[in-house]
Amino acid sequence: MAKELKNLTKRSENYSQWYNELVVKADLAEQSDVRGCMVIKPYGYAIWEKMQHVLDNMFKETGVQNAYFPLLIPKSFLSKEAEHVEGFAKECAVVTHYRLKTNETHDGVVVDPAAKLEEELIIRPTSETIIWNTYKNWIHSYRDLPVLCNQWCNVMRWEMRTRLFLRTSEFLWQEGHTAHATREEAEDRAKQMLKVYAEFAEKYMAMPVIQGVKSETERFAGALDTYTIEAMMQDGKALQSGTSHFLGQNFGKAFDVQFVNEQNELEYAWATSWGVSTRLMGALIMTHSDDNGLVLPPALAPTQVVLIPIYKTPEQLSEVTARLDAIAAELKAMGISVKVDANDQKRPGFKFAEYELRGVPVRLVMGARDMENGTIELMRRDTLEKETVSVDGIAAEVKRILDDMQTSIFEKARKYRDAHIYECDDYEEFKSRIKDGGFFLCHWDGTAETEARIKEETQATIRCVPYAFEQTPGVDMVSGKPSVARVLIARAY
Amino acid sequence: MAKELKNLTKRSENYSQWYNELVVKADLAEQSDVRGCMVIKPYGYAIWEKMQHVLDNMFKETGVQNAYFPLLIPKSFLSKEAEHVEGFAKECAVVTHYRLKTNETHDGVVVDPAAKLEEELIIRPTSETIIWNTYKNWIHSYRDLPVLCNQWCNVMRWEMRTRLFLRTSEFLWQEGHTAHATREEAEDRAKQMLKVYAEFAEKYMAMPVIQGVKSETERFAGALDTYTIEAMMQDGKALQSGTSHFLGQNFGKAFDVQFVNEQNELEYAWATSWGVSTRLMGALIMTHSDDNGLVLPPALAPTQVVLIPIYKTPEQLSEVTARLDAIAAELKAMGISVKVDANDQKRPGFKFAEYELRGVPVRLVMGARDMENGTIELMRRDTLEKETVSVDGIAAEVKRILDDMQTSIFEKARKYRDAHIYECDDYEEFKSRIKDGGFFLCHWDGTAETEARIKEETQATIRCVPYAFEQTPGVDMVSGKPSVARVLIARAY
Repeated sequence: MAKELKNLTKRSENYSQWYNELVVKADLAEQSDVRGCMVIKPYGYAIWEKMQHVLDNMFKETGVQNAYFPLLIPKSFLSKEAEHVEGFAKECAVVTHYRLKTNETHDGVVVDPAAKLEEELIIRPTSETIIWNTYKNWIHSYRDLPVLCNQWCNVMRWEMRTRLFLRTSEFLWQEGHTAHATREEAEDRAKQMLKVYAEFAEKYMAMPVIQGVKSETERFAGALDTYTIEAMMQDGKALQSGTSHFLGQNFGKAFDVQFVNEQNELEYAWATSWGVSTRLMGALIMTHSDDNGLVLPPALAPTQVVLIPIYKTPEQLSEVTARLDAIAAELKAMGISVKVDANDQKRPGFKFAEYELRGVPVRLVMGARDMENGTIELMRRDTLEKETVSVDGIAAEVKRILDDMQTSIFEKARKYRDAHIYECDDYEEFKSRIKDGGFFLCHWDGTAETEARIKEETQATIRCVPYAFEQTPGVDMVSGKPSVARVLIARAY
Repeated sequence: MAKELKNLTKRSENYSQWYNELVVKADLAEQSDVRGCMVIKPYGYAIWEKMQHVLDNMFKETGVQNAYFPLLIPKSFLSKEAEHVEGFAKECAVVTHYRLKTNETHDGVVVDPAAKLEEELIIRPTSETIIWNTYKNWIHSYRDLPVLCNQWCNVMRWEMRTRLFLRTSEFLWQEGHTAHATREEAEDRAKQMLKVYAEFAEKYMAMPVIQGVKSETERFAGALDTYTIEAMMQDGKALQSGTSHFLGQNFGKAFDVQFVNEQNELEYAWATSWGVSTRLMGALIMTHSDDNGLVLPPALAPTQVVLIPIYKTPEQLSEVTARLDAIAAELKAMGISVKVDANDQKRPGFKFAEYELRGVPVRLVMGARDMENGTIELMRRDTLEKETVSVDGIAAEVKRILDDMQTSIFEKARKYRDAHIYECDDYEEFKSRIKDGGFFLCHWDGTAETEARIKEETQATIRCVPYAFEQTPGVDMVSGKPSVARVLIARAY
């Protein structure tokens, strides 16, 4: 077996290092020479493209249209919404000049001081301000509403400590920004888009999520409510995987977006925004993968099936490959993405390790004896189970396995998560157990003080007030004050 | 008829103003409040998405994979290739700081002087430097080659005079960057991608193009050869619509990308890059549109057919609309994109004008009498011809019209262009005729001096040495010196 591929750190040894190594070894992404910015490599980008494609269709099904707004935001725009500037000004890239010139020694370039901008421009950390400044000209009457725009783009938040996909200074995302005539319609849209995210996460990423609403402290800067989906990684930590914000009239007021409503009165427009990012790549990797490498849900795997010939002679290679090509064509015709790897520069064992590392869901291997017997070896990546099956009906069998894998990795992740969700009413117990990860359902008195104390003492945060659990009143485990509901507390990425 | 839509300036009155108005009135794009940066509106973006989709598939057919590289480029990277920095340093956005802070009066934010970057970062004007800095780590042996990456992204070139789609400080594009083991393979790839662009332009945009190679003066900064497709707009001016560059070993040397070749010798990798941008939107608009608005090739129209009911009573509206819905479903099943517009807040005449302005290729109109007669009115956008046809077989007829329109607008544009290509051997004649537009095939002595003189005296430039014309030696019309071939000269966007 190929040693250079197999020396992946084990999850049990060092989960964090396992993740970092896996991202690089599976050819998903790497650090660039630009601080905090990553290069998304072709294999990683192919997975992201699949995600984009599915999400984009789901958005469009709800009436959303794509558009594109400027990368650069005038500094003064940020200041127009008080909480928003507070949330984003501390971590933004600032453009101050628009020209370089040759230096005095003629061996490099320097910033041309004559080309200083009158007002600095910020690389968008998120686009509420520039978009609502644009909506001002689009929205005059209730007949112009709703406006339902989304953009796929890059954004920049200057992060001091970065990790591939999970936290990078530049990342790719989509940001939806909608404007509505009523509060109710905007709140419904914010909740609707969270449902879209949850459906995408569970159905395509095979990643179970808990839907809920954020505490005030954890809200998006400028939102009245932030809805979130939270997923559990294999180390028991939470990963916030998508958020949808009800922004009230905050941006309508900040950018003076008023419209004449049906009662012929001037009113500020109601807003939502919602986004998921390349962070989802991190969530996908950490939910399913194992010590052999990536495990990808078939629905998002760029290559779903790899076919590999085993041979002793060039004649055998060409015979077996011809047979595999025929099977590949059959699979393709069923809409399954395939790759026949007949490269004779690499040994089969090397290929096996490589495709395991890259998470190809199904591997088919055929040798000369299989040819004679009319059989083929099938391995599924999630369980690593191998079986020798008949070539007759292999396409249908592969399809069945792919469907089964999509369901079973979801079930496996769900069971793991559910086994690590605990009700807890004792703060001492909480403090000792939170170190091992898991989601804790605890009563909370609703104060920022208690929330801050938990965070300070345990590094855990209130992830959300979850929708799905039956709630009864109780007593805050920290303060002893009354609580109306349990919240989900966890350490998080 | 809706007056607010119909007061589009006529092309014959002021072509430039016609274009500017059309882009805004057809809801394609608008200026933002950020200098030189545009907002691409949903309708414009939907066309761009269709272009992206087709091009992306065409690239992938040739083995290209998508990836993503950082937005920001360290200043020193630009300086590593001498011509490249010369070409791009004068027009770039420079990031100098990474944080804002609250100002002294607590009513705004200012740049935090403590957050000054050690080395300034440039927003990518193009990505050769950051990509070749990355390729350095990917390429060690001829076995690692070729590397065939493309990225869809935004880029920034600080333009002083901007026009929507044609010249904006920020624009969207794709940039392909390939690395090869031999000079020949790289040159072939550069030419291959130009062919892809030409095929896309002619087959999908219905826009005839002339393929050729740029003069040294007009080459991309850092290229050994730049291949180009040039299209003629309706005012006779040229629009460079796509370029593909053979970069030799310039970037391989600048970023020390060496590999062990098959002869076991160290060699610098050979490079190409190639791109098309949202500029193509400008080309598309100017090639086909008329005084009534946009004319879109069916292959790129977001909505190919609009169906509009005519009615006197609400009962008629619902009856006719039900019939149109059924026809729409039939068209959809054939893969045709449709919209039934039964909005009773807008008069039919207003709708007619609106969809003409937006360039929807086919309009179907049905009234109560049509219902009785089993007929429907069909209008095609390119000729504005109306005919009343039987509802039986309407889907097949629409399909036929769409196909015919795709071909005939191409033919119309080709005829127009061919009628405005002139051979010219007399510089005085050239100077007087170039004012009226057109492409001139003239002998050129190959010197930058002659080229500069033509540009200075006529604002016309050498667009390319075209492939497709038979070439015989002659005499330069300006200098009287010998010339080996005619070049294409025109004023250009």
